[in-house]
Amino acid sequence: MEKSFKYQFQVRGYELDSFGHVNNAVYINYLEQARWEIVNKLGLLDLLKENKSFLVVVETNIKYVKELRMFDEAYIVSSMIGRGFFIDFKQDIFDNNNRKVAKAKVKCLFLDENRNPIDIPDVVIPYLNEYY
Amino acid sequence: MEKSFKYQFQVRGYELDSFGHVNNAVYINYLEQARWEIVNKLGLLDLLKENKSFLVVVETNIKYVKELRMFDEAYIVSSMIGRGFFIDFKQDIFDNNNRKVAKAKVKCLFLDENRNPIDIPDVVIPYLNEYY
Amino acid sequence: MEKSFKYQFQVRGYELDSFGHVNNAVYINYLEQARWEIVNKLGLLDLLKENKSFLVVVETNIKYVKELRMFDEAYIVSSMIGRGFFIDFKQDIFDNNNRKVAKAKVKCLFLDENRNPIDIPDVVIPYLNEYY
Amino acid sequence: MEKSFKYQFQVRGYELDSFGHVNNAVYINYLEQARWEIVNKLGLLDLLKENKSFLVVVETNIKYVKELRMFDEAYIVSSMIGRGFFIDFKQDIFDNNNRKVAKAKVKCLFLDENRNPIDIPDVVIPYLNEYY
Repeated sequence: MEKSFKYQFQVRGYELDSFGHVNNAVYINYLEQARWEIVNKLGLLDLLKENKSFLVVVETNIKYVKELRMFDEAYIVSSMIGRGFFIDFKQDIFDNNNRKVAKAKVKCLFLDENRNPIDIPDVVIPYLNEYY
Repeated sequence: MEKSFKYQFQVRGYELDSFGHVNNAVYINYLEQARWEIVNKLGLLDLLKENKSFLVVVETNIKYVKELRMFDEAYIVSSMIGRGFFIDFKQDIFDNNNRKVAKAKVKCLFLDENRNPIDIPDVVIPYLNEYY
Repeated sequence: MEKSFKYQFQVRGYELDSFGHVNNAVYINYLEQARWEIVNKLGLLDLLKENKSFLVVVETNIKYVKELRMFDEAYIVSSMIGRGFFIDFKQDIFDNNNRKVAKAKVKCLFLDENRNPIDIPDVVIPYLNEYY
Repeated sequence: MEKSFKYQFQVRGYELDSFGHVNNAVYINYLEQARWEIVNKLGLLDLLKENKSFLVVVETNIKYVKELRMFDEAYIVSSMIGRGFFIDFKQDIFDNNNRKVAKAKVKCLFLDENRNPIDIPDVVIPYLNEYY
């Protein structure tokens, strides 16, 4: 079973800031979208909607290595580790020459509609690289 | 000399995501604006423009503690530590009951127009809490 | 009764695009927030949440007159006209020298949770400049 | 010569607002990116950078017809009419069932680095549907 996920994208013009490169917050958007792709691929989107539950971010660590500019092609490789209630997403961004653009770890948590933590859904477990 | 900086803001409606709370990337926007306020207060804005230099983010660590919702009042307390070329911004976000909303450390670097690191400008030094 | 609403704001650094001025889509964000302020001032926020109803935009016309740059102070003057189910917001943006920055008309509509149009709430009627 | 341009995209999770659909300002982002694609395809990107000139929006009219939701596939068909200094972009957004999502007209203008209007670049002329 494939335990790493690839999300490809191209930099859009409005994502640049006044320095002419992709704004630091937009990298966070890219990482979020890469996680939504995983949520979707694992069939979690409907489950979460039915249960009125949420996958929220509790911590983000990101190192910015390289600038991205308009029309740059890039991709994110994501993998997951489970720790109790938490999923740690390891998410690295690369350009189309496979040079690292950013390196991130994003700790997430499933919450129910009352904002209480819930177990990692069963369907996710087989995709975790580690779980303890 | 005051070495900590306060930036106040109120959550805007379009900053919410489909979970009805402020999106995780928008916290990064808030932190950036708090740093722009410091850059402005220290008179760096014109200096940077003249020198065609930039204050870029090289690393962000943020812990999300509390949700923010529409019209919530909040503020950010920022302080700076200098380490060689780098400035570490310690930036904590609080709501108007002084409860912690997020806790962040953002490592920044001044770059010249050729993207080479430059020294922390002299005008910043007196505002650093530590410098080594 | 005051039938025009003023929303003040200051341009944030991350709202600039690669041209060094506020991006055209950010003006649309500003207009939205000015409408949220009205919704809030009229006590509609809780009503809409209870009814699971929405104020959605069906048409926007905006003329961009002047650039906005970092830390510019600006304000929006909004007023409303009712036309059946629709509210036309007339929204003009000015800088702090009272020069026009943008001129907009935004047609909105209240929808219920099934996305069917509903009447303009009674509490809004006295604030309409015209209604027919 | 093909005088209409197609830009395809998929809705990203962070583009939704608290109503669970794509925020009205994000449609403006999509339209901008569709225009950047044209600018790129016509080889204008380098020309504009060399000349320090800009393609700015002076007016946007958009009718919102249909909601977009997470992972919806959509595309924009754009065409151009030249009127003196101005280019009118006719830009319609469709979903993947070819139903209209939005209908827009965006009036743009090339400016030099002193913000003075300049002629429509020669390379654009053959792609205009009309020009007078």
